[in-house]
Amino acid sequence: MVYDAAVIGTGPAGFSAALNLKIHGKNFIWIGSKNLSEKAGKAERIDNYPGLSHITGKELNEMFGAQAEAMGLTITEQMVNSIAPMGANYALMAGSEFYETRAVILATGTARTAVLPGESALVGKGVSYCATCDGGLYRGRTIAVVCNAARFEHEAEFLAGLAAGVYYFPLYKDPALSGENVELMEERAVEILGEERVSGVKLKSGREIAVDGVFCLRDSVALASLLPSLETEEGHIAVDREMATNLPGVYAAGDCTGRPYQYAKAVGEGNVAAHSVIAYLAGKE
Amino acid sequence: MVYDAAVIGTGPAGFSAALNLKIHGKNFIWIGSKNLSEKAGKAERIDNYPGLSHITGKELNEMFGAQAEAMGLTITEQMVNSIAPMGANYALMAGSEFYETRAVILATGTARTAVLPGESALVGKGVSYCATCDGGLYRGRTIAVVCNAARFEHEAEFLAGLAAGVYYFPLYKDPALSGENVELMEERAVEILGEERVSGVKLKSGREIAVDGVFCLRDSVALASLLPSLETEEGHIAVDREMATNLPGVYAAGDCTGRPYQYAKAVGEGNVAAHSVIAYLAGKE
Repeated sequence: MVYDAAVIGTGPAGFSAALNLKIHGKNFIWIGSKNLSEKAGKAERIDNYPGLSHITGKELNEMFGAQAEAMGLTITEQMVNSIAPMGANYALMAGSEFYETRAVILATGTARTAVLPGESALVGKGVSYCATCDGGLYRGRTIAVVCNAARFEHEAEFLAGLAAGVYYFPLYKDPALSGENVELMEERAVEILGEERVSGVKLKSGREIAVDGVFCLRDSVALASLLPSLETEEGHIAVDREMATNLPGVYAAGDCTGRPYQYAKAVGEGNVAAHSVIAYLAGKE
Repeated sequence: MVYDAAVIGTGPAGFSAALNLKIHGKNFIWIGSKNLSEKAGKAERIDNYPGLSHITGKELNEMFGAQAEAMGLTITEQMVNSIAPMGANYALMAGSEFYETRAVILATGTARTAVLPGESALVGKGVSYCATCDGGLYRGRTIAVVCNAARFEHEAEFLAGLAAGVYYFPLYKDPALSGENVELMEERAVEILGEERVSGVKLKSGREIAVDGVFCLRDSVALASLLPSLETEEGHIAVDREMATNLPGVYAAGDCTGRPYQYAKAVGEGNVAAHSVIAYLAGKE
């Protein structure tokens, strides 16, 4: 099956895009966290979202969630690892799944975690974002796993079942991963080392540990790794007034397109991106 | 007094802009109808405004109004007739008032009524948008008044007190204007006639009546008349991603910048325009 569109990201921009694609009866997949915007969820108070006075980010998020449910929107909770042109369409790899889609809306937010020095250069050379896809390559080897959220722990567990040894770097509180071959690291990883391939990880103290591979388990991957031919400007996706990127059929919306990082801007851009996708699909028919 | 900014328009875009300027403590004037968006107020049901499910346009409008009041925003109910550069600032003529402002946000919506053929070419040559400003010029003369809403009727009444005769063309139901010198027209005016100056008005039937001037009483004036040096594209204000127009310090947001005509887009653009104004003002200090 070929989807009309894939919306990547479940924050305000992705939600607004999905809402409009749904109303227009498009056959699309909406990929991201079922918690919607985790960043928004942490906002203490939002005063400048038109129509909703003095709400917390948590309340706004819950309203978005309730509305998504009422509109029959479903979220596919996966991490998209790569997007590649495939003829006139695009191929998405998300976890171990493969999707083909005519159009893409990137609503991936700002990268919440800085990419580690060395990371981008070593993608596919020992740096991976997908346990299911690449775990098998590290059977019996030693790896580092940098994990941003508790909900990716099961992927780390899967890796621990394959690898000889796992240095585990949780970036969240109260990690529950354990195992004979798992070393829970208290120090942060600050750099991925390696020339041709990953050779190790540098810790904050300066200490270096040797590993064969590094898994970064996160909500979003660096844009440069996700879709290498995508044009960016100062770390943001370059878009025009229609939210079109340099790639035909690929649109972007929300914080990933630049400042101001605002809910109102995000929902507006998501709306415009969806309408642009609808026009793009109509033009291809 | 010089304002930091003037926001023209009280629909979703203007409201979003005003909200953000207020939060940032700017000294600005917000000009438009106290009814906020009359177009929105007529929407039967809105399904795609993120955060508010299945609301009517009237409800959304009321929410905006309540939020504006809670945030201490005040609306100056006037019609802006012209905007002109004045040194590094702008001079606004609104009714009989004059305002000086460093920056302008145009959130004027789509022109709800088509400009009459002949109108733009004859502005200042017998076509006027402001009874208070130009009424005195037509003392003892014969004029036509095209009035879009009952709330402008008092302006027409003022004109009837000066002119020898008024052909009154109401574009709303149940007009209440009367007087010995007022002729209530049942036919619509379809063209403003005149070469060097206004000479008459053409009716739908083809009949022509001779007048010395035409007053068009509306929420908004045609962009070409409002700010002649403003660049437009296919009838919309040309803006970049920062909502900047071709004129320094002049920004635009909402339906006046083009499709899609959507609440979410409007509030997003209003937000961005306000942040651009804040950056613009900071750059001038």
